[in-house]
Amino acid sequence: MDAPTTLNPSDLAAFYRTALLEDVMPFWMRHGLDREQGGFLTALGRDGTVIDTDKSIWVQGRGAWMFATLFNTVEAKQEWLDAARSGIEFIRRHGAREDGKLYFTVTREGRPLRMRRYVFSESFAAIANAAYAKATGDARAAADAQKFFATYLDYSFKPGRMEPKVDPQTRPMMGIGPHMMGIATAQELRLHLGDIAVGERTCSQWIDWSIAQVERYFLKPEHEALMEVVGPAGEVIDHFDGRTLNPGHALEAAWFIMHEGKLRGDQKLVRLGLTILDWMWRRGWDEEYGGIFYFRDLRGLPVQEYWHDMKFWWPHCEAIIATQLAWSLTGDARYAAWHRQVHDWSFAHFPDREMGEWYGYLHRDGRVSVQSKGNMWKGPFHLPRMLWYCWRLAEESAKGAP
Amino acid sequence: MDAPTTLNPSDLAAFYRTALLEDVMPFWMRHGLDREQGGFLTALGRDGTVIDTDKSIWVQGRGAWMFATLFNTVEAKQEWLDAARSGIEFIRRHGAREDGKLYFTVTREGRPLRMRRYVFSESFAAIANAAYAKATGDARAAADAQKFFATYLDYSFKPGRMEPKVDPQTRPMMGIGPHMMGIATAQELRLHLGDIAVGERTCSQWIDWSIAQVERYFLKPEHEALMEVVGPAGEVIDHFDGRTLNPGHALEAAWFIMHEGKLRGDQKLVRLGLTILDWMWRRGWDEEYGGIFYFRDLRGLPVQEYWHDMKFWWPHCEAIIATQLAWSLTGDARYAAWHRQVHDWSFAHFPDREMGEWYGYLHRDGRVSVQSKGNMWKGPFHLPRMLWYCWRLAEESAKGAP
Repeated sequence: MDAPTTLNPSDLAAFYRTALLEDVMPFWMRHGLDREQGGFLTALGRDGTVIDTDKSIWVQGRGAWMFATLFNTVEAKQEWLDAARSGIEFIRRHGAREDGKLYFTVTREGRPLRMRRYVFSESFAAIANAAYAKATGDARAAADAQKFFATYLDYSFKPGRMEPKVDPQTRPMMGIGPHMMGIATAQELRLHLGDIAVGERTCSQWIDWSIAQVERYFLKPEHEALMEVVGPAGEVIDHFDGRTLNPGHALEAAWFIMHEGKLRGDQKLVRLGLTILDWMWRRGWDEEYGGIFYFRDLRGLPVQEYWHDMKFWWPHCEAIIATQLAWSLTGDARYAAWHRQVHDWSFAHFPDREMGEWYGYLHRDGRVSVQSKGNMWKGPFHLPRMLWYCWRLAEESAKGAP
Repeated sequence: MDAPTTLNPSDLAAFYRTALLEDVMPFWMRHGLDREQGGFLTALGRDGTVIDTDKSIWVQGRGAWMFATLFNTVEAKQEWLDAARSGIEFIRRHGAREDGKLYFTVTREGRPLRMRRYVFSESFAAIANAAYAKATGDARAAADAQKFFATYLDYSFKPGRMEPKVDPQTRPMMGIGPHMMGIATAQELRLHLGDIAVGERTCSQWIDWSIAQVERYFLKPEHEALMEVVGPAGEVIDHFDGRTLNPGHALEAAWFIMHEGKLRGDQKLVRLGLTILDWMWRRGWDEEYGGIFYFRDLRGLPVQEYWHDMKFWWPHCEAIIATQLAWSLTGDARYAAWHRQVHDWSFAHFPDREMGEWYGYLHRDGRVSVQSKGNMWKGPFHLPRMLWYCWRLAEESAKGAP
């Protein structure tokens, strides 16, 4: 996976396609499928050896979505459909507590380990089921996608439904995460199931609502920043948590919004996404060592998290998508340069050229911190999603090019 | 704070004393007291500027213990007693929820922010009140010390009292932390209040019981390791959490146990502490860059925590104490060499020679990761406790020397 020497869209498309289909997905097909108990095993050592058999429900949904998406958009390969089904069926059999809320982790055979307050297992299960319903016509998958999204919306946005971490009487806070994931989940449901209603809004209306909330409460022109958490009227909370910016997260939000603008032909949405990209690229890019910092403080004060300056795989995947999408939507040379910059840094530091896939966690200067290829968070998702999205985008640009 | 050039106990004593009384405590006196609202403010930037006004209840107890201990053992300085009282009174006024359980964090003025499952706020409040009762004869402090320790024991050891993180039906686990902190808390209560009964055991009996549990369930001769968590019969849990070793934590346990052996003249306890030190020093010392790794995997597999190789201030403080105590108890040159090794590395990398105190969080190679001097965990505790303990121990060695 060496970086291409030109920014020619056809070369880029071929590069991303090759990395996806000849390196990354084969790694997960070879090592990440539990052929005995079903579902995905993603706690893998450098060479793909399973180093922990516990299963992440996030990863079951993310993996099933990725395999179903490749089946739907690249080629109707039986092994991809089987892998998607394996994740879907594992969630059906073992994912949920009696009340329907999904676990965070379970054992290899599916016995409950951890339940968490929040509902990201549900958002990933929703997109997995939506893509799987499209692939198979399976009615239960279509129904489950809606059911999981309804649970996600309920816990994320109904006041008092989720137990808060910080006393809401003393310091009411709201996070951008639920809006961001709500946008991406609604986009996937709409793509596969049509613009259906879930709860009191259609998918497009949920997207409108969350983007409006992001713009109204989390976007701070006076700071040129997108906040992670704010007070109930969008107040900046001038404490560690309130000041902590997550540039990778913001760049992911930026491309979700640009993608929506592109689908609708809505330049206002595209400009909003570009604004977030512009501000958070400047906040996140490490001018000294290259790469995207994990956390930054709004006022440049010390960040509480001691590992704030590490370089994780996923913010780089999101930055590669955001910059390429911005470039394709605007033709602006600045975005081409940023795309090249983060692409080159990422492909110079994250890939394991000997054993395949990417390392997940690098020190600030790009040295590998952890040799493993996956864990309860890192599985077949951010990296293959980026390669798949950027391949298709580059191909589109190549076709549209004069 | 340059390292002394010899291992002469008198020089060491003077070195630690100077660092404690002329650098570290003045830093906290100058910057860490909330002269308006009471208690300690410990989220301080490099120069001591307050960067977050939220207050940690752990730190209120730890700080009050440290100031009261200096008052009790070094000099009856009014400003130290006042600082201790300020922490004690802040906990009295604002520390507890209605049911008496202490918060983890509150606002500057004491409004509740976070409650956590576990009860380390209680263990620190217990030692603070015990030392403050000794300093003042205050009856409420003596009663509170017992009350907080009783709550600590109840939540830590009564089955089902603390909500477990991992489903106990699927994977019952027990941690070493409650035993370790139980030993240190019981030692402080006994020192100041006598060998009183708290719940069904006296302080000495709680110490005996916890040391017996550590030896029986957590110490693994076949691996030459002290585990952090094990199954209910001491089984190694071969998953990420179960395999994760915390050498700094183990070295702290080692010196708590050696200290008990020294007090009682019990060579069996001293040998147990030395065994833990021997094994966990080898597990923890970084042969390449020096310093003590934060986490290690029992089987040498990748650790799940991506910041596993960072060098934190507190494991180094604990290692300095453990090696010096082992040296003073055995006269073994190996422990003198280890003490010198970790002392030199620590004093070469952690101190801020310009603004005082220590940085808390270094990268593996010793470069500073976070410029701040404190936060909700780092306050006037591990570093001054080490300087205080090692000063007195070196002085004792100097006096006992031929």
